[in-house]
Amino acid sequence: MVTFLDQVATAEKTNKTFLCVGLDPARLPEHLAGQPDGIFQFCRDIVDATHDLVLAFKPQIAYFAAERAEDQLRRLIAHIHATTDIPVILDAKRADITSTSHQYAREAFEVYQADALTVNPYFGLDSIQPFLDYQDKGIIILCRTSNPGGAEIQNITTMDGVPIYEVVARKAAREWNRHGNILLVAGATHPGELARIREIVGGMTLLIPGVGAQGGG
Amino acid sequence: MVTFLDQVATAEKTNKTFLCVGLDPARLPEHLAGQPDGIFQFCRDIVDATHDLVLAFKPQIAYFAAERAEDQLRRLIAHIHATTDIPVILDAKRADITSTSHQYAREAFEVYQADALTVNPYFGLDSIQPFLDYQDKGIIILCRTSNPGGAEIQNITTMDGVPIYEVVARKAAREWNRHGNILLVAGATHPGELARIREIVGGMTLLIPGVGAQGGG
Repeated sequence: MVTFLDQVATAEKTNKTFLCVGLDPARLPEHLAGQPDGIFQFCRDIVDATHDLVLAFKPQIAYFAAERAEDQLRRLIAHIHATTDIPVILDAKRADITSTSHQYAREAFEVYQADALTVNPYFGLDSIQPFLDYQDKGIIILCRTSNPGGAEIQNITTMDGVPIYEVVARKAAREWNRHGNILLVAGATHPGELARIREIVGGMTLLIPGVGAQGGG
Repeated sequence: MVTFLDQVATAEKTNKTFLCVGLDPARLPEHLAGQPDGIFQFCRDIVDATHDLVLAFKPQIAYFAAERAEDQLRRLIAHIHATTDIPVILDAKRADITSTSHQYAREAFEVYQADALTVNPYFGLDSIQPFLDYQDKGIIILCRTSNPGGAEIQNITTMDGVPIYEVVARKAAREWNRHGNILLVAGATHPGELARIREIVGGMTLLIPGVGAQGGG
């Protein structure tokens, strides 16, 4: 079984990089705007131009869904799989009760053939388990998000004197990770907290958004 | 402006009920299985049979997305709007950083023409604001979910001695609800906590899942 983390390790070795490229097609260049598959073409061109510089591609599903372009997202992921060895993270931040999370897992891993998925921890482990059960897939749980408002819930201090995001990091690393396929989101916009998460989770792979436009370094 | 809460009030008065019917088409009856629009037909038949008994319909998007049936979901919601005055809650549990939440809001309210949407609070207010800005729509924030694992994060006690779900209830009622369009999810499976949420939020409308199969009364 080749796992998502194996794919990442291979791409890291081949391309000598830690870079994950997001595919969030908010606005198309003029020559593609209005084209029936303009979103696909735009993202495909980015993939073709960068596949030897990255260790993962991360399309954000909302940008496709808001344009009724789910088919273009499917084609894009198929194109990445057909032409590169770079794994695909579907950025969708899903989670619900167990039976519904099972359907979200089918959406991500069967319909879209993603290699990894971002997941929200608010519902607890039973909502995450249907994703974890795809043992070859990467399950990337939100811990400390990169947005300014992230602190509002995530940095609330618990009775034990630690913030909520540390509780999520501990649970993810020590209780939830039986299949070894969990990763965490830890925003580059909060370097002190990122360091704290790294201390808690040891060698676990982290997805670190917020470098660049969001102000992280 | 007719708001979601107006629509709910009208339906409640007309149909004399507090019932919201979920449309989670997990398994189709034999005569519809394999039909190209079987999911639409199945849900449409439920809508046609129950529209005088409910105050809202709540399709869960994962069941459609896992079957590549986004078009059938669009047709279903259009059918409800064309044939009834019952509002539609899109159950999708969305949230992300502001720019992405804006796309999710377009997905729910423009592509699907939903009247309300379920939203996850883990990212904080700036992730919820793009939804709230659709002032005629209902924004239904997860507070205490109905699943057994919900307690894992939601019931962590803060330094101030209250559980996280109470913090969410307070913020939702006292800080976030400037447009008056927030509702909360409070599971029927935890009646004591539901009562506590009711105390905190006063007259705010609650979506109470978990009655029936999940064990709530």
